[in-house]
Amino acid sequence: MKDTGILLINCPDQKGLVAAIADFLFRHNGNILHADQHQDGTLNLFLTRVEWDLRDFDLSLENFDAAFSPIAQRFSMEWRLTCSGPRPRIAVFVSRHDHCLADLLYRQKSGELHGEIVLIISNHPDTRWLAEFYQIPFHHFPIAPDTKALTEKAQLGLLKSHGVDLVVLARYMQILSGDFIREYPRRIINIHHSFLPAFHGAKPYHRAFERGVKLIGATSHYVTETLDDGPIIEQDVIRISHRDNLEDLVQKGADLEKMVLSRAVKWHIQNRVLVYANKTVVFD
Amino acid sequence: MKDTGILLINCPDQKGLVAAIADFLFRHNGNILHADQHQDGTLNLFLTRVEWDLRDFDLSLENFDAAFSPIAQRFSMEWRLTCSGPRPRIAVFVSRHDHCLADLLYRQKSGELHGEIVLIISNHPDTRWLAEFYQIPFHHFPIAPDTKALTEKAQLGLLKSHGVDLVVLARYMQILSGDFIREYPRRIINIHHSFLPAFHGAKPYHRAFERGVKLIGATSHYVTETLDDGPIIEQDVIRISHRDNLEDLVQKGADLEKMVLSRAVKWHIQNRVLVYANKTVVFD
Amino acid sequence: MKDTGILLINCPDQKGLVAAIADFLFRHNGNILHADQHQDGTLNLFLTRVEWDLRDFDLSLENFDAAFSPIAQRFSMEWRLTCSGPRPRIAVFVSRHDHCLADLLYRQKSGELHGEIVLIISNHPDTRWLAEFYQIPFHHFPIAPDTKALTEKAQLGLLKSHGVDLVVLARYMQILSGDFIREYPRRIINIHHSFLPAFHGAKPYHRAFERGVKLIGATSHYVTETLDDGPIIEQDVIRISHRDNLEDLVQKGADLEKMVLSRAVKWHIQNRVLVYANKTVVFD
Amino acid sequence: MKDTGILLINCPDQKGLVAAIADFLFRHNGNILHADQHQDGTLNLFLTRVEWDLRDFDLSLENFDAAFSPIAQRFSMEWRLTCSGPRPRIAVFVSRHDHCLADLLYRQKSGELHGEIVLIISNHPDTRWLAEFYQIPFHHFPIAPDTKALTEKAQLGLLKSHGVDLVVLARYMQILSGDFIREYPRRIINIHHSFLPAFHGAKPYHRAFERGVKLIGATSHYVTETLDDGPIIEQDVIRISHRDNLEDLVQKGADLEKMVLSRAVKWHIQNRVLVYANKTVVFD
Repeated sequence: MKDTGILLINCPDQKGLVAAIADFLFRHNGNILHADQHQDGTLNLFLTRVEWDLRDFDLSLENFDAAFSPIAQRFSMEWRLTCSGPRPRIAVFVSRHDHCLADLLYRQKSGELHGEIVLIISNHPDTRWLAEFYQIPFHHFPIAPDTKALTEKAQLGLLKSHGVDLVVLARYMQILSGDFIREYPRRIINIHHSFLPAFHGAKPYHRAFERGVKLIGATSHYVTETLDDGPIIEQDVIRISHRDNLEDLVQKGADLEKMVLSRAVKWHIQNRVLVYANKTVVFD
Repeated sequence: MKDTGILLINCPDQKGLVAAIADFLFRHNGNILHADQHQDGTLNLFLTRVEWDLRDFDLSLENFDAAFSPIAQRFSMEWRLTCSGPRPRIAVFVSRHDHCLADLLYRQKSGELHGEIVLIISNHPDTRWLAEFYQIPFHHFPIAPDTKALTEKAQLGLLKSHGVDLVVLARYMQILSGDFIREYPRRIINIHHSFLPAFHGAKPYHRAFERGVKLIGATSHYVTETLDDGPIIEQDVIRISHRDNLEDLVQKGADLEKMVLSRAVKWHIQNRVLVYANKTVVFD
Repeated sequence: MKDTGILLINCPDQKGLVAAIADFLFRHNGNILHADQHQDGTLNLFLTRVEWDLRDFDLSLENFDAAFSPIAQRFSMEWRLTCSGPRPRIAVFVSRHDHCLADLLYRQKSGELHGEIVLIISNHPDTRWLAEFYQIPFHHFPIAPDTKALTEKAQLGLLKSHGVDLVVLARYMQILSGDFIREYPRRIINIHHSFLPAFHGAKPYHRAFERGVKLIGATSHYVTETLDDGPIIEQDVIRISHRDNLEDLVQKGADLEKMVLSRAVKWHIQNRVLVYANKTVVFD
Repeated sequence: MKDTGILLINCPDQKGLVAAIADFLFRHNGNILHADQHQDGTLNLFLTRVEWDLRDFDLSLENFDAAFSPIAQRFSMEWRLTCSGPRPRIAVFVSRHDHCLADLLYRQKSGELHGEIVLIISNHPDTRWLAEFYQIPFHHFPIAPDTKALTEKAQLGLLKSHGVDLVVLARYMQILSGDFIREYPRRIINIHHSFLPAFHGAKPYHRAFERGVKLIGATSHYVTETLDDGPIIEQDVIRISHRDNLEDLVQKGADLEKMVLSRAVKWHIQNRVLVYANKTVVFD
C-alpha cells in the first residue's frame, strides 16, 4: 500500500477550485492518485476528496498547514488533512450480542481493517472470551442508573490513556450522554439494527416483524446527541418473508449488521467520509 | 394456463388440517397443483393456499360452499374460494405522474397481467393520452375540498357501473375517505414512494434526500383508513449515492414503483395474498 | 426448538399424493408444522418436504419405514426420512484463505449452525490457530501429486473414524477424486468464488476483473465428479465498479462467500435441500 | 439542465494531469461541475471525465481542439469532447419481444432519455403498433440468409439518411455482420438476457433454467465482432426459486432487461462511458 496524503474539503462552490488544489499539489510534486469531487446544488457546496502519493512530495505534513492556508482562506474552505500511514486506535463498545465484535476482530486480524482495536468495553462480561483470544484489554462496566456519569468518566479515562481515535458501538445497548459524545465528535460510529429512519429506538426487529415489512435493514451512522439521528454512513437491507419468524429476522439481521458496520468503519479509517448538513458523502 | 380453483384459509392451528383439506379435494377428484401452508407461531394460526386443477374436479363451484362448509366449521376457518378463470376488472386512479399507469397498461396488453383495466380516473387531465391509446374510458374529476364527498360518490358510481373488482392507486395523490375505502376492503392497492414505515405521508423523496439515506424504497400496500399503514404486499429498494440529486431519486424511484406496484397487483390477481393481523402472507 | 420429523419426497406427479401423505401423518397423530410441495411441470415430477411434530407421534422412527412403505410403493416415491434432533457431524476442508472456516466456526459456537464441526483438514498449516482456539482436531495433509491417492485414503479414514456426515470445502483449493466424492454423494458442499456457470475453474476473480463484469458472485453447490458443475444450492452477487481493483474484488467476494456457504450448509443441515436432475429445490 | 462541455480522457498516468486539465478550463473561465478520475494500476492508465458549465466559458467548441491539443499531445491523451446540448439520434432494432422498445419509447416521451428515437427497424412487423403510436418511422426487413448483406446495406442507408448517432439492439435476435458493426464502433448497444459471460449465445433463459441457477441476469454491452463479448456497460440480476418455471424466468428477466438496457443507453447519451481494454468505466 502506498503512503498517501488525503485532503477532505468542504466550501462554497466557485470557479477555479479544482485547478487551485490540483496546481498546489503539482507544484509540490505530488502525484494525484484519486480525486473525486461533488457539488451539492441545493446548498451550493463544493465537496472533494483528493489523495496523492507522498513519495516525492516535497512538503512535510508539518509544513502543509502553512503552505495550504492561503488557498484555504481564499476559498473559505473547511478542510482536513490526514494520511494513510498511521493506523487509527479503536475502542469497541459491546453488550451481549457479540457478532459485530467478533467480525471486527477477525477483519482486523486478517488485515482487512487498517486500524488497531486497542480496547473492548462492555456492560456485560459475556464477550471476554473474544477479547482474551485476540489478546485485547477488556473492561467490564456494569451499568446502574446512579453511577452512569461516573462510569462514563472512567470509560473516557480509558479511551484517553489508550490514545483512542475512534469509538465503535458494536451493538452497545446503552445510550451515551451528550458529555461523552462531545468528546469524540464524528468519531463514534454506531450500528442500528433497522433501516433508519424506520424503527429508530428500541426493539426494531420486533417492530419490523409486527409491521409486516418485506425487507429488514441495518444502518451505521455517526452518533450525535439525538438518538439514531446522526449522519448515516452506510445502510443495507435483506429480503424476508412470512416464513421468517422473529428469530430468523434477528439472525438474518446479524449478517447485515456485520457487513454494514464493517464497511462504515473501514471507510472512516480510509478517510472517505465527509460529513456536512447531517449527511455524509462517502467518496468511493 | 390451466383452469384452477384456489382456496385461501386462515384458522387456529390444529392437527389434521392438511389431511382434511387434501382429502376433501382428492375425494372430489381434484389434482393439487400447489399447496403452501404457513404457521404463525405467535398467534397460533394456520394459513394456507391450495390450488388444484378444475379439470376432472367433480364439484361445481356453486356447490362447493355446501360441500366444504362442514370442514370449515369443524376447524373454525375463515376461507375464500376463487378460481383462476375470470379476469378481475380493474380501475386505476392516477394523478400527474403516469409511469405506473403506463407500466400497468403495457403489462396488461402484453398478457403479463391477468386482469382487465376497465376504467381510469384522475384528478388531472394529463394522462388522457394513455387512456386513449389503450382505448380505456377516462374520467377526469378535478378535486376541490368542498366537493370531495360528491366526487367520491360519483367515482363509486362509476366503479359499480363498470363492475370493478380491484382499485389500484397508481400514484394518486389524493386521500380517499373512510366511506370510500370501506366499499372496497382489501381491494384497494396503493403504491407509496418510500420504504414504509420510513417517510410515510407527503414528499418522501424530499425527506429521504434530506435525511441522507443510502437506499430509497417503494411500498405497495392495501389501503386502510390510517394513511400509509395498511398491510404491506411488496417492497423494494435501490441504492443511491451522494451523486444523486433529488431529481435522480425521483427517477430511480419511479422504476422501483413500477416494479413493486405491478408485482403487488399481479399477486393480488393470482389470489396469492392472504391478509391477517394487518400483515400479508404472499404465497409464492 | 421442537423435535420434528422431516420427509423429503420425489415422485411422478399424480392425484392424491398430498392427501395420502397428510392422511398417513394424521392417522399416526402427527401435527404437520410445515408442508411445501412443488411440481416440475417439464419433468412431471412432484417434490415435497413435510415436517411434523414428533411429540404425540405414535410411530417410532424405526417402525416408520415399514408403515410408510406401502404408500411409497404405490406412488413410486424416492423418499428420505430425517429428524431435527441429531446434530450432523461436519468436517471442514480448507486451504490458506480462512474466512469461510472462521465464519463457520463462529456460527457453530453462536448456536446458529445446528451441526458439529468435528474435524478440520487442510493442505496448509495456516489455519491451525483457528482450530486450536475452537478446540477442534486439525490435520495437515501436504499435497503432492504422487501421494494424492494415499492422502485421500487417510482423509477418508479420518472422516469415518470421526463419524462425519457432511464435508464442507471452505475454500479448499484441491480437486477431490471421483473415488473420494462417491463416498459422500450429495454430502460434500463446496463454495466457488464466482457466479457459476460464469468463471468456473481457476482464478475466477482475475477473470471477472479482466472481463469487466459489473457484479461478482459466489456459488455453493454439491460436489460432483465434473468440476464446478454440481447442483447449485445458493448463489449471491455484489456490485463492483471500476474503482474496485483485483484486491477489492477478493475482499468483497470474501463476504459473499461466507454468507453463501453458511446458508447452504445451514439449509443442508435443516434437510431443506432436495436434489433432482442436477438441480436443487431449497424448501424455505 | 445546464449546457455543459464534457471531456473523456484516457492516457498514461503521470504527474500534473489533473492540474493541467483543471488549469486549462479555469483559464478559459469554465466552472467544473463534475470531475471524476480513475487509475487503472495494472495498465498504468489515467482515465477521467470532466464536465463544466459552458456559460461564461470563453472558448467556442470549434476552437477547443486547437487550444487543447498541446496539452493532449504533452500527455499522449486519447480524448473526446462532447457537450450536453444536442440530443443524439437513435435507431432501435427489435425483433418480436417489444418490452425493451416500449420502455425506451416511454422513457423518451417522459423526458428521462435525453435522446431522440428517430427510426425503428425490425425483422418482424409485430411492433409496428408502438411505432405508430409514438409516430416514429418503422421499417420492416424480413431476414433471409441470402439477402442479409443487401438488407444490412439498406439498413445502413436508412441510418445515414436519418443521421443516426446510436444504434440500440432492443432484443434484436439477428447477428450483425462485422461490416455493419465497423460502421458504428462503440455506438451499438445490445441487451443480452443473461449475466454474461454465463449463457452467452442462444436461449439463455432455457439454459439458466436447466442449470438450476438461483439468480438470473441481464447484460448491456457495446457490440463487437465477437458475439456477446463486447465491453459491458451494465448488468443486474434478480433472484429466482424452484417455484419459477421457464415462463416466470422470461417475465422476471424482461423487467431486468428494461432497466439494464435503459441505464446503459442513458449513460451512453450522458457521455459517462469510457471504453478501454474491452471494459468500460462508467463515471457516475
